[in-house]
Amino acid sequence: MMEYRIERDYLGEKQVPKEAYYGIQTVRAQENFPITGYPPHKSLIQAFGYVKKAAAMANRDVGGLNESLASAIIKAAEEVIAGDLNDAFVVDAIQGGAGTSFNMNANEVIANRAIEIMGYEKGDYNRLSPNTHVNMAQSTNDTFPTAIHIAALKLSQGLQNVLEEVIDTLKKKEKSFDDVIKMGRTHLQDAVPIRLGQEMGAYRRMLERDLYRIERAVDNLNAVNMGATAVGTGLNAEPEYIETVAKYLADLTGLKLKSAEDLVDATQNTDAYTELSGSLKVLAINLSKMANDLRLMSSGPRTGLNEINLPARQPGSSIMPGKVNPVMCEVVNQISFQVIGNDHTISLASEAGQMEINVMGPVLVFNLLQSLSVLENGLNVFRNYALEGLTANREEAKEMVHKSVGIITAINPHVGYEVASRVAKEALESDRSVKDICVERGILSEEELEEILDPQEMTNPGIAGARFME
Amino acid sequence: MMEYRIERDYLGEKQVPKEAYYGIQTVRAQENFPITGYPPHKSLIQAFGYVKKAAAMANRDVGGLNESLASAIIKAAEEVIAGDLNDAFVVDAIQGGAGTSFNMNANEVIANRAIEIMGYEKGDYNRLSPNTHVNMAQSTNDTFPTAIHIAALKLSQGLQNVLEEVIDTLKKKEKSFDDVIKMGRTHLQDAVPIRLGQEMGAYRRMLERDLYRIERAVDNLNAVNMGATAVGTGLNAEPEYIETVAKYLADLTGLKLKSAEDLVDATQNTDAYTELSGSLKVLAINLSKMANDLRLMSSGPRTGLNEINLPARQPGSSIMPGKVNPVMCEVVNQISFQVIGNDHTISLASEAGQMEINVMGPVLVFNLLQSLSVLENGLNVFRNYALEGLTANREEAKEMVHKSVGIITAINPHVGYEVASRVAKEALESDRSVKDICVERGILSEEELEEILDPQEMTNPGIAGARFME
Amino acid sequence: MMEYRIERDYLGEKQVPKEAYYGIQTVRAQENFPITGYPPHKSLIQAFGYVKKAAAMANRDVGGLNESLASAIIKAAEEVIAGDLNDAFVVDAIQGGAGTSFNMNANEVIANRAIEIMGYEKGDYNRLSPNTHVNMAQSTNDTFPTAIHIAALKLSQGLQNVLEEVIDTLKKKEKSFDDVIKMGRTHLQDAVPIRLGQEMGAYRRMLERDLYRIERAVDNLNAVNMGATAVGTGLNAEPEYIETVAKYLADLTGLKLKSAEDLVDATQNTDAYTELSGSLKVLAINLSKMANDLRLMSSGPRTGLNEINLPARQPGSSIMPGKVNPVMCEVVNQISFQVIGNDHTISLASEAGQMEINVMGPVLVFNLLQSLSVLENGLNVFRNYALEGLTANREEAKEMVHKSVGIITAINPHVGYEVASRVAKEALESDRSVKDICVERGILSEEELEEILDPQEMTNPGIAGARFME
Amino acid sequence: MMEYRIERDYLGEKQVPKEAYYGIQTVRAQENFPITGYPPHKSLIQAFGYVKKAAAMANRDVGGLNESLASAIIKAAEEVIAGDLNDAFVVDAIQGGAGTSFNMNANEVIANRAIEIMGYEKGDYNRLSPNTHVNMAQSTNDTFPTAIHIAALKLSQGLQNVLEEVIDTLKKKEKSFDDVIKMGRTHLQDAVPIRLGQEMGAYRRMLERDLYRIERAVDNLNAVNMGATAVGTGLNAEPEYIETVAKYLADLTGLKLKSAEDLVDATQNTDAYTELSGSLKVLAINLSKMANDLRLMSSGPRTGLNEINLPARQPGSSIMPGKVNPVMCEVVNQISFQVIGNDHTISLASEAGQMEINVMGPVLVFNLLQSLSVLENGLNVFRNYALEGLTANREEAKEMVHKSVGIITAINPHVGYEVASRVAKEALESDRSVKDICVERGILSEEELEEILDPQEMTNPGIAGARFME
Repeated sequence: MMEYRIERDYLGEKQVPKEAYYGIQTVRAQENFPITGYPPHKSLIQAFGYVKKAAAMANRDVGGLNESLASAIIKAAEEVIAGDLNDAFVVDAIQGGAGTSFNMNANEVIANRAIEIMGYEKGDYNRLSPNTHVNMAQSTNDTFPTAIHIAALKLSQGLQNVLEEVIDTLKKKEKSFDDVIKMGRTHLQDAVPIRLGQEMGAYRRMLERDLYRIERAVDNLNAVNMGATAVGTGLNAEPEYIETVAKYLADLTGLKLKSAEDLVDATQNTDAYTELSGSLKVLAINLSKMANDLRLMSSGPRTGLNEINLPARQPGSSIMPGKVNPVMCEVVNQISFQVIGNDHTISLASEAGQMEINVMGPVLVFNLLQSLSVLENGLNVFRNYALEGLTANREEAKEMVHKSVGIITAINPHVGYEVASRVAKEALESDRSVKDICVERGILSEEELEEILDPQEMTNPGIAGARFME
Repeated sequence: MMEYRIERDYLGEKQVPKEAYYGIQTVRAQENFPITGYPPHKSLIQAFGYVKKAAAMANRDVGGLNESLASAIIKAAEEVIAGDLNDAFVVDAIQGGAGTSFNMNANEVIANRAIEIMGYEKGDYNRLSPNTHVNMAQSTNDTFPTAIHIAALKLSQGLQNVLEEVIDTLKKKEKSFDDVIKMGRTHLQDAVPIRLGQEMGAYRRMLERDLYRIERAVDNLNAVNMGATAVGTGLNAEPEYIETVAKYLADLTGLKLKSAEDLVDATQNTDAYTELSGSLKVLAINLSKMANDLRLMSSGPRTGLNEINLPARQPGSSIMPGKVNPVMCEVVNQISFQVIGNDHTISLASEAGQMEINVMGPVLVFNLLQSLSVLENGLNVFRNYALEGLTANREEAKEMVHKSVGIITAINPHVGYEVASRVAKEALESDRSVKDICVERGILSEEELEEILDPQEMTNPGIAGARFME
Repeated sequence: MMEYRIERDYLGEKQVPKEAYYGIQTVRAQENFPITGYPPHKSLIQAFGYVKKAAAMANRDVGGLNESLASAIIKAAEEVIAGDLNDAFVVDAIQGGAGTSFNMNANEVIANRAIEIMGYEKGDYNRLSPNTHVNMAQSTNDTFPTAIHIAALKLSQGLQNVLEEVIDTLKKKEKSFDDVIKMGRTHLQDAVPIRLGQEMGAYRRMLERDLYRIERAVDNLNAVNMGATAVGTGLNAEPEYIETVAKYLADLTGLKLKSAEDLVDATQNTDAYTELSGSLKVLAINLSKMANDLRLMSSGPRTGLNEINLPARQPGSSIMPGKVNPVMCEVVNQISFQVIGNDHTISLASEAGQMEINVMGPVLVFNLLQSLSVLENGLNVFRNYALEGLTANREEAKEMVHKSVGIITAINPHVGYEVASRVAKEALESDRSVKDICVERGILSEEELEEILDPQEMTNPGIAGARFME
Repeated sequence: MMEYRIERDYLGEKQVPKEAYYGIQTVRAQENFPITGYPPHKSLIQAFGYVKKAAAMANRDVGGLNESLASAIIKAAEEVIAGDLNDAFVVDAIQGGAGTSFNMNANEVIANRAIEIMGYEKGDYNRLSPNTHVNMAQSTNDTFPTAIHIAALKLSQGLQNVLEEVIDTLKKKEKSFDDVIKMGRTHLQDAVPIRLGQEMGAYRRMLERDLYRIERAVDNLNAVNMGATAVGTGLNAEPEYIETVAKYLADLTGLKLKSAEDLVDATQNTDAYTELSGSLKVLAINLSKMANDLRLMSSGPRTGLNEINLPARQPGSSIMPGKVNPVMCEVVNQISFQVIGNDHTISLASEAGQMEINVMGPVLVFNLLQSLSVLENGLNVFRNYALEGLTANREEAKEMVHKSVGIITAINPHVGYEVASRVAKEALESDRSVKDICVERGILSEEELEEILDPQEMTNPGIAGARFME
């Protein structure tokens, strides 16, 4: 049978499981918000650990907390950072109250663990109080945004790392596919030749810009609003404390954190999140386009384009033997859709901010951290299981170029658009090659055509066989 | 040189172009809202004509307006309905104020035209006042929603008609392509055979559901809130008037309009619009999927799938002679994206309603009517210029089925998934046909295979060559 | 130390934890898709249980499965339905492959449990094979959509129930607040009086339409595509089986399931989901508007509107004593934003369907089921913890009406818009009451004003004190 | 009666209005795309003028065009730049074909005008051909993206300018409202005091970040892909031409344009647009939040917060005399919703890119340029008609602070959270002031409270009356 202790606040009293590190506020939140069934993101819990540790150190330094209380809080916070108390963070990811329940949950867990460390029983808040001591000179309105910043920065680092690795892989492919001639397509219609390496290079450059966009977007997250307290004015927080806590946070996390220049602004505005999410959305859009291209190029094997091969990762069908699907690309598409949808939710939450704080923080951070995580996770497997092992069907790709009509474009500067159009029409209607018709009609000689229609030549700027023009 | 008359309201006075039918409120609105440069949708102007005419008739009937004023207002409103005064509706499509400026613009135009009809000079509001007479027993908060309903209903009718025509065209294609065997594709990978007629049928049924969804969605629009006045309580509107005006509106428009059961609800809630826009979004998503399929199937002509031909509508390239692009499908995709984005704006506007009315009506109706229009316009040309003339490349399509490995699936029930998998693997690796390998390995006889692998047979439920199983 | 068994497929072999009910395909999926860390929704697992049980029963009936295998599969499937094997469903909610890994996971778990039931060791697929037997006459492309339909229908029922309860609560409030006069507001500006009961009624009717919309939207889900197999043509599925399996499914689930009229359509099109999600989005928008209104009306307590009181659910601040926040409304807003964002993801996934199936099913169903769940959960606590205990500050609300200027509107019909405007202006500028000024200026007598300005009167249609007009 | 000339291409012939500057391709496009009824954005037409002029100059320099043809094209292009030929740009804003019809329309208009300049009749393409000469070494796939870049850059400059002006206005307000004490609100509930100047400063800093975001986002637009021709490989474009045309474009436009480093990338990827649109979306979200705050603060006048006054811009109601609404804020909200919805459309269009180009360019640019325009237009009137004339109700704002309970927070550090909570509760329940109760209960002396509860003091960091703590 579950045993309980009784805790009280100004709204009344509640039973709390005797062994729980959390307390009455957390119990209230569990009751109020049985919404998603998801706990807070692990990175957010860890970030709260950093916040509470840094605050305790700063409060100790400015004389707000005595050494013994501070030391116990710091030790408990370290356990939170290490993930040892994750099970005690039980409030739902989506909740009312601007993150108050996250902060209360953190305060209670750290208080009770600290009380234990000090040798007393959980719930004995006369020894050390969640609000007065753990939350000293703090408010949900500064601790929660600060924790979001830390969590988002940490996760962004991981994403940036894997994005760099993807870019490296694409660089390798760019090089190894530099001589793979294939048909370029516009409107899904045969256009003019291109090299597979050029396509890989285009993906690579696009992702380099994404990496740069994310780097710039996270920059705003370095400004944290610790010390803002309730509305950003810093009521009840000494200036010395504000300065100190930011320094400790930077030290502890290894991040370039600093106190925001304007705490009122930093408390109520959420554009640092929408900006980051926006950059993730652009990445998602780009990845989806790239995944779509790879799925198109690998379509077949017999009745599709079949220009490239993606590594076989799993049997593709429970009914069709031998079928292998581009599952790693498909999961990238889906991750992209998730991230784009999340950006939508984040935008709605950001827009709904009113006056001194944005109470929609919980749903915002739930989506933001999820976007960062699924992108990192997805890019990791995408690189390992799809891009690294990607191969080209060189011969098939080249053959398609030769049988296409699109190469007619190169003849343009030599015979004019009018004549070229007539040749193209005849080739398409008679199902013959451009070259044959040109020779037959005496438009250009076989030697000239050899040079003009060289596919490799066509993939670089310039007018092929330019000397014939003179 | 432009000549002006002076008009006044309780905020002061303004110059109004002497010949303008609009008045001071419209001038204020022009000054305040130079946003998009787009005037109100023509269907909205017409709808205001209906509203003002019906209101004048009802006010006359209940004794609020005398015969002579009523008659002048009615005549002027009829000119609005006919579109003769469109040029006088000059307020911007996006504007602050819950549509107040639309209503004011309508009141002023009708008042001034009525004054003219009565033989006086524009601006002589002592004869007939925009607010007291044209707007009698009305508020922006009932006339504007009512006008939106009418405009949306009218445009929906047009959309429904063209959707029916598209469905008819697809029915014809379903029939004429019933015997076109082609490769079915899942994950863009070769799956099992299907008939092009079956695919056309799937599009047709999908659009039938869309038609039904739109039919149901517009139903809520029939309930109008005329008589709600400021907040839905009907202050200053006699019950008899409320009843009468709805009846006149139904008569005049030929729509099944009726007075909303709860005017407070009908005044503040905008779910009738989000529901309609939602059904348009589903249609847009479906159309985009269908357009994508058609673009895929018509890709090539030489290095793509090349299963179908879309009518050539325009040279596709200023540089590549002979290129023809699936432009009618592409414009359907783009219309779909527009409609989906519009739905987003509409959702944001709807969510932003507060208390007794939703002040975001202008941007909402701008997007809603645009969605209806571009869908109707787009479906019309899509049908005429892409679907009607769509043809199949029967031989190419069938040949692809024969060379595919996906047909192996039909062998499954006869030899088991294990054996079939081995055959599939060998076929793919050796670039040979499933049939050859089966015969060579003595797995099935040529006669059995003939029956089992019949593509036509495979496109219907059942186990092909089922008797071999016994 | 973890012990393993070895399993094989045509791509090679893999270690599977010896005690695991899942098999090699699941292990491949775990390796490929470590994306969200979330398992499939419980309702989806259960739905797969129903699908596999019904399929086994139908296959038994048509002679595809012998009694002993069928019986073991059925028993295992029942355990899945009961939730006893939830831990064995370990593939990630977001995955490539159109749900193949969900289906494979289900096939393997049921096969291994059935093998155990038959008295053999897990992994001994010669006894009973996940593909040949559990998946007999099935494909991911029919089982997964069918399972989605069942899961969505079940969750929708829950949502509809709680929505009905919310409507009931609002009906009660409508009645008990019928006599609470308060200021109506448009543009957040003082308008004319309204009764709190009228506002509750407006919310109630809006939600009644939402309920109706959801009821209609789920209707399409009753048509399931079991028997469609790979692309909807029913290859390898006997017509008798197709008919039988749908009947069994309906029986087992208690839902009105039936075989889709066109299996090709039902296999590739996802508008049943976008339609349902669309109706949830409209609900979300409406709930968010309502939550916003309640937050506005309960703002204060001293420097806001303070017209209503929401039950105090938790201390609102870790720094501001005595603060209580409208947390249940805030969580409704956030749920709404989540659902709207989810709808976006669902729309993207639906639009990305290509040819014979939509491979984006996993992310689609992840979001759809989440939307259904969080709405049900959220509405439940919203009703219990916010609406049921909602109270009105009658006196404060009435007093505000009396001091407002908006009541001037009722004077309009008696003195004309012009005179009324002058009174309004003077009242606002001199900070006096409308009534005082009217009396002082001799515009109307105190008795007349008493009747005209009766706030209760103003909340019903009609011209207050109409007899003065004559 | 309309007179026509006949023009021909390889699909057949068409009647063209005899006096039209456009030609057969434009006529085809008009027939194919009667979608929105909107012509291309004026800035896009102008941008095409720059593109064609620069191309003609470069082609002349590299010897592709002789002096006389080049000179005529240049003169005609200058008229396009000047806007003199706007009426001839008649293709619909939404169209299939990746912008081909825009480019064709531009080629035809410039060709025909150039032909006229040379002294011949419109349509006499033997003199000068739209494709061979005006479009020399160009493709839709490089001219259209380049034109989009130019148009977006030009419009962005305008937006940045007006954003700077808004920031200046907010700086003034920040200063003039520095001493306006008002209640800070979180969760719409009374929190602790803040200064109106601080709030203005928070808006200002937020918009400064928006300005910076836009500045960074447009940077990518400076890289143009002229010379990319069909797929980015530069087929038929001499390297010298590619270099030259970029230089001329930069000179002519005054923009920092340069040739993209990788033309394949620059031709197929559209993240420069999604990035810019994303930054506009963040701005829109921020503006909407700010507009919402202003609407809340100006709510009333008698039954709302009434802390600030927005300039009266127009009578707010056709039925309620004296009502003035915050219309300039409301239009900002609506513009924001439009921009957010546009971003959605842009994202969909960007994601739909396939292989070597993105054919969804027309809908993308339609939305992007609209977003830029409406933001510039909206911010301009918002600043002039709402922000500049914004005034504060100093006395009312201060009085609310004094009667609030939120100030209790400042007592916290002196008496502890527990005691403070009890005082807060008593104050709220007895409807008395915090100060009275503290004095009565002997918790703090009147002198101490005077210092601690000083509202001005509370709006700065630090513990008010800190010396009492010792």
